[in-house]
Amino acid sequence: MVFARAKLAVEGTTKAMPETPPNRIPLAQIVNPRSIAVIGASDDAGKFGGRVIHYLIRHGFPGMLLPINPVRATIRGLPAWPSVAAAPGPIDVAVLAVPAAALLREVEACAAAGVGACVVITGKLADAGEAGAALESEVTAVARAAGMRLVGPNCLGLFNVTDAAMLSSSLALEVERVKPGGIGMVSQSGALMGALVSLGHRHGAGFSRCVSVGNQADLELCDFLEFLIEDPATRVITLYVEGLKEPARFAPLLRRARTAGKPVLCVKAGRSEAGAQAARSHTASLAGSHAAFAALCRDAGAVLLDDPAVMVLAADVLDRLGGLPRAGMGVAVVASSGGSTVTTTDMLAGFGLRTATMSDATRAEMARWMPPSHVHLPLDTGSFHDNTSEEALRGCLRAFMADPDIGAVLVPMTTQPAMAKRAAMLPPLAREGDRPLLYVMMAGEVGDAARDAMRAADFPWFDHVAQALAVLRALEAEAAGRDRATLAPPARPAGLALAEGLPSGALTEAEAKRLAAGYGIPVTRESFAATEAEAAAAAEAIGFPVVLKGVSRAVVHKSDLGLVKLGLGDTGAVRAAHAALRAAPLPLDGVLVQEMACGEAELILGARHEPGLGAFVLVGTGGVLVEVLRDVQLAPAPLRPADARAMLRRLALWPVLEGVRGRPALDVEAVIDALVRLSWLATDLGERLVEMDLNPILLRAAGEGCIAVDARATLR
Amino acid sequence: MVFARAKLAVEGTTKAMPETPPNRIPLAQIVNPRSIAVIGASDDAGKFGGRVIHYLIRHGFPGMLLPINPVRATIRGLPAWPSVAAAPGPIDVAVLAVPAAALLREVEACAAAGVGACVVITGKLADAGEAGAALESEVTAVARAAGMRLVGPNCLGLFNVTDAAMLSSSLALEVERVKPGGIGMVSQSGALMGALVSLGHRHGAGFSRCVSVGNQADLELCDFLEFLIEDPATRVITLYVEGLKEPARFAPLLRRARTAGKPVLCVKAGRSEAGAQAARSHTASLAGSHAAFAALCRDAGAVLLDDPAVMVLAADVLDRLGGLPRAGMGVAVVASSGGSTVTTTDMLAGFGLRTATMSDATRAEMARWMPPSHVHLPLDTGSFHDNTSEEALRGCLRAFMADPDIGAVLVPMTTQPAMAKRAAMLPPLAREGDRPLLYVMMAGEVGDAARDAMRAADFPWFDHVAQALAVLRALEAEAAGRDRATLAPPARPAGLALAEGLPSGALTEAEAKRLAAGYGIPVTRESFAATEAEAAAAAEAIGFPVVLKGVSRAVVHKSDLGLVKLGLGDTGAVRAAHAALRAAPLPLDGVLVQEMACGEAELILGARHEPGLGAFVLVGTGGVLVEVLRDVQLAPAPLRPADARAMLRRLALWPVLEGVRGRPALDVEAVIDALVRLSWLATDLGERLVEMDLNPILLRAAGEGCIAVDARATLR
Repeated sequence: MVFARAKLAVEGTTKAMPETPPNRIPLAQIVNPRSIAVIGASDDAGKFGGRVIHYLIRHGFPGMLLPINPVRATIRGLPAWPSVAAAPGPIDVAVLAVPAAALLREVEACAAAGVGACVVITGKLADAGEAGAALESEVTAVARAAGMRLVGPNCLGLFNVTDAAMLSSSLALEVERVKPGGIGMVSQSGALMGALVSLGHRHGAGFSRCVSVGNQADLELCDFLEFLIEDPATRVITLYVEGLKEPARFAPLLRRARTAGKPVLCVKAGRSEAGAQAARSHTASLAGSHAAFAALCRDAGAVLLDDPAVMVLAADVLDRLGGLPRAGMGVAVVASSGGSTVTTTDMLAGFGLRTATMSDATRAEMARWMPPSHVHLPLDTGSFHDNTSEEALRGCLRAFMADPDIGAVLVPMTTQPAMAKRAAMLPPLAREGDRPLLYVMMAGEVGDAARDAMRAADFPWFDHVAQALAVLRALEAEAAGRDRATLAPPARPAGLALAEGLPSGALTEAEAKRLAAGYGIPVTRESFAATEAEAAAAAEAIGFPVVLKGVSRAVVHKSDLGLVKLGLGDTGAVRAAHAALRAAPLPLDGVLVQEMACGEAELILGARHEPGLGAFVLVGTGGVLVEVLRDVQLAPAPLRPADARAMLRRLALWPVLEGVRGRPALDVEAVIDALVRLSWLATDLGERLVEMDLNPILLRAAGEGCIAVDARATLR
Repeated sequence: MVFARAKLAVEGTTKAMPETPPNRIPLAQIVNPRSIAVIGASDDAGKFGGRVIHYLIRHGFPGMLLPINPVRATIRGLPAWPSVAAAPGPIDVAVLAVPAAALLREVEACAAAGVGACVVITGKLADAGEAGAALESEVTAVARAAGMRLVGPNCLGLFNVTDAAMLSSSLALEVERVKPGGIGMVSQSGALMGALVSLGHRHGAGFSRCVSVGNQADLELCDFLEFLIEDPATRVITLYVEGLKEPARFAPLLRRARTAGKPVLCVKAGRSEAGAQAARSHTASLAGSHAAFAALCRDAGAVLLDDPAVMVLAADVLDRLGGLPRAGMGVAVVASSGGSTVTTTDMLAGFGLRTATMSDATRAEMARWMPPSHVHLPLDTGSFHDNTSEEALRGCLRAFMADPDIGAVLVPMTTQPAMAKRAAMLPPLAREGDRPLLYVMMAGEVGDAARDAMRAADFPWFDHVAQALAVLRALEAEAAGRDRATLAPPARPAGLALAEGLPSGALTEAEAKRLAAGYGIPVTRESFAATEAEAAAAAEAIGFPVVLKGVSRAVVHKSDLGLVKLGLGDTGAVRAAHAALRAAPLPLDGVLVQEMACGEAELILGARHEPGLGAFVLVGTGGVLVEVLRDVQLAPAPLRPADARAMLRRLALWPVLEGVRGRPALDVEAVIDALVRLSWLATDLGERLVEMDLNPILLRAAGEGCIAVDARATLR
């Protein structure tokens, strides 16, 4: 039921190409080519080809630049060539921003001329309908046949900032210089990439390589992700994903990035239904299930975000200041305005953050500088004793940077005297410590001198508190994911046996429970009964009270149809219930007689195979409220017990499991065991499993176990 | 229990001052004075007094300006005066930015010289501890005795932008000109006000009057709120509130503002515990219960926000573009980048917004310009047929502006050719319609020409999608609150009778139920029994099954202590349960024998008197999960039935009440009736009611009513 909403659609297959020749050029050389031909080069920067050559020159491309233009002898002072065939080789990369009608011809010419790779900016191909998709296939086939690689089509090229190779028509390059730095980016939207690089540029962020992959006809997001993992210039990786061409490559690459010490931040399009629909028509790749994608990212230690702007600003903090020392630490808010510190502190919780609890040493340092009544977080520096303010700020910030619970310092500065001077104090203090200090200039133009001071100090700054808080939340997720890649793989529990002879399609409750029981998941004792007499006998054997359920392969949610009779205390009640069930206007295969189980809480456990992404398990608040509360957690299978425990801890229901308000602690270990076992069931079934729900699983007090009282499953 | 967490603390009393002389000056004249004396004026803009006179001159104060300086003959070319006494009168306002040690003397001098009002920038008074508070009292007494008004102390003065009277030392005035406009502001933090005006200024927002009220020793937030309501220059009111001096004035003023057609946007400090603690020490006024304050704002049609930046940007949209046509409409996202439209659409839901459903007319218009497969929201203008883009954008935007479900259009622009030209197309199109168009320039500096184009068109713009979405959410709340002020007052139901002879302190369950029953709220039938025999007899009279509860005035949560015995089916079970209860290690007053009620859902209903703010009622998901789920809604009492229904609809539990997954619809009308009755109970008890919980109330299927099975209350 919960799973059923997570619609799945991922293009998971790559057609095998017979007798593909070896590629002419490695990917690193496409990113950093020795020579570039610009097809359709022009002196007019208003045209795509004109902008490409303009930006290559402006940003100082050091290699050979070959403008291709059939009618001009020179372009921007460089000798131009009538065709790629006429131009001197070898040509590592050709950039094509030609009309779609000319594309196939130009790509053929490049293939014939021995070009290593084409960066195809031309759009309106697979992104624009069937005719475009056919043309894209033709173009791709030509390239493949020649061993020539393609970036795009429908992309905006790539910025290799490290090596000054800006192969792009993006207006984001309309600046004097893009600052080199550690942020790498792969994006399925060129325009978004341009905006993000420009945004980062304004804030002083530095980039290594940014690649717009467009329709991914040949080279795809995972290829460039792999490149960035190996790339020494890249310290932090950012991704804008619409749909993955080969989903199975993605999670292993995320883990490799983590092992290489590189955080990965990611925005995935298509979380909302409207967004998914738009993403589909946009890049001709289908959006996968967002929840499964999110679970995959979490499991691999990558940070999935909603907001692309937050992605790039958080990447900048990670690149220039580093991340939080560890996950779960608090935040210290400091500023000279009570109004800004209090409102910022109020906003913290909404971002899943908390105000730090200061150590005694920190409190003692603060007490040197302010009245005892003001020694608390947030710190209002307006409370410092007169004329101590600079010295006091230094003392307090140094104490914060050493406090075991302060993971980050947040300074929301309002208009105040000497803003720039005050701001300039912060970078050296922050660099003394090992945790980030986020500086927000809340004012408009009157704060620009302070922004300039931060830029001059090569230090990040923010314009809005909400954005800094969103970045802090991303840093927290980054810290939480840091050790994921180094964990030992999940260990297989003993006693897992796949039930034999299960049919395809929807299983009956009994079949689904047999499947679960084979993996050691506790289920209710029960017997199938075809007649009233059999039902009465089964009830005697199981022991009263019992439950009777009408069994029909056609019915998924039995309780909705009155097909469940609870608490039958004697044979008479069983016979009466049987008669009532048989009177229902539905063809029943028989009835199931079950022990009547009790528990203190109802959970749902579920499993599903997500084509292209693999097996996933789910746990959540179960029973009739499952779809109302939507209190569920998802993770890729198989699970470690610690993974299962972490999922439970993230549930809103967790306080009930721990024992809230004097109620008993429940048998969390039993649920963990059941969830781990279910994760292996899903792993072993692989693509055969469509989905399986154990709902509800009744959870008893600690030591008393849990038991699945209902189950359903669908197999392929 | 839920209420118990909403800690309450509001300073609610104003001491009566005997024989206060009439005020020398009306408030409007303090905001727009004919003459201003600046105590401590100096040529040095590095000093507070120097900045005040500097800004008054720079921003063109048209009245008489009197620099007061004991040693200088002229200040900034104006004749200076050695004292207020020596300066020519009448002096409407004196601005004081003197050290605290000199404050009393200067205020006395002003009082003696007949000054109308003092704007006291001097800080470290009640905000800094007891000595400061004593000084503040003295200063206030001197002013009161003379009929001289005070703004502050510990404030940054006020900006009267409309009349060019900038009585402030705020660095926010470090600009050529502050743009006049319709946004009025009252703030308990001067530094935050400065930052917000500066932020608004950058975005082209215009202001009327902005007042920093500081410690509110005399004039307070509500005084200036009242002024802004009457002020013809003010069209939208923004408030930053830490604590109210006279809370009872606040809600009626919010309603008056709405009646006057002026939206009120408000940020209230102290939502978080850490924030509340900091707010307390900051302005020496205690933060009230945030939940009650939020309920009060909602009831009065005001918009309560977390983020001060969003407050001022939303006020700007309301001022320059107007609000949403009505609440509940959808949003249309439009841009030239699939990446920006899709991620923006994905982010919508997180802000409580939704993508609009287009009318057939809108779809038909879109189909003129793009392939059928691309006719959906978000609109990616990259899908327009070649060379139709300007005409197509006009056509689509006009259709959006006429679509009955599109409440606002959101344009998240990335880097693209001709950004400024494209941006400039939007304001005239938006002004053809009656709904706001929010323009976001996602890029950094390369987007500045587009920002300039919007500024030139006097049109708002945003830098970040998340901020525009937060503003849209505020606009939605504004639209939802628009008609609140014009509703008829709640009508008193028949049959309300206050139980007599109730003690003070904690009531027993029986007493609390008697109180509820007197107001017509259904409660379980029950009898008190002092002995086992009485219990057995009572059970026979009520009818089996029954519930036995141990009664003790000392116990609040009976079920936590095993003092509730459910489902007793016969006399033997009653006797056994009685014996078990009596064996508990607690002094019992007796037992309560109750009918055993059943229901389909458990709710909590509660009531509380919030000193200074009045009576409130609460409804939420009840039972043991109440504190885990925190699914509660609060509103000021008394309620209209429509108010109670709206509260229920905002619960996460609402789908269960409506009938989810084939389950029966529950008796919502019965809960509404009970909640309305409880709201009158709370209203009638007034300050006598500390708090009352009916938890759980069991809700049955539609037409079958609801019933309170447990109750507790505390009276003063």
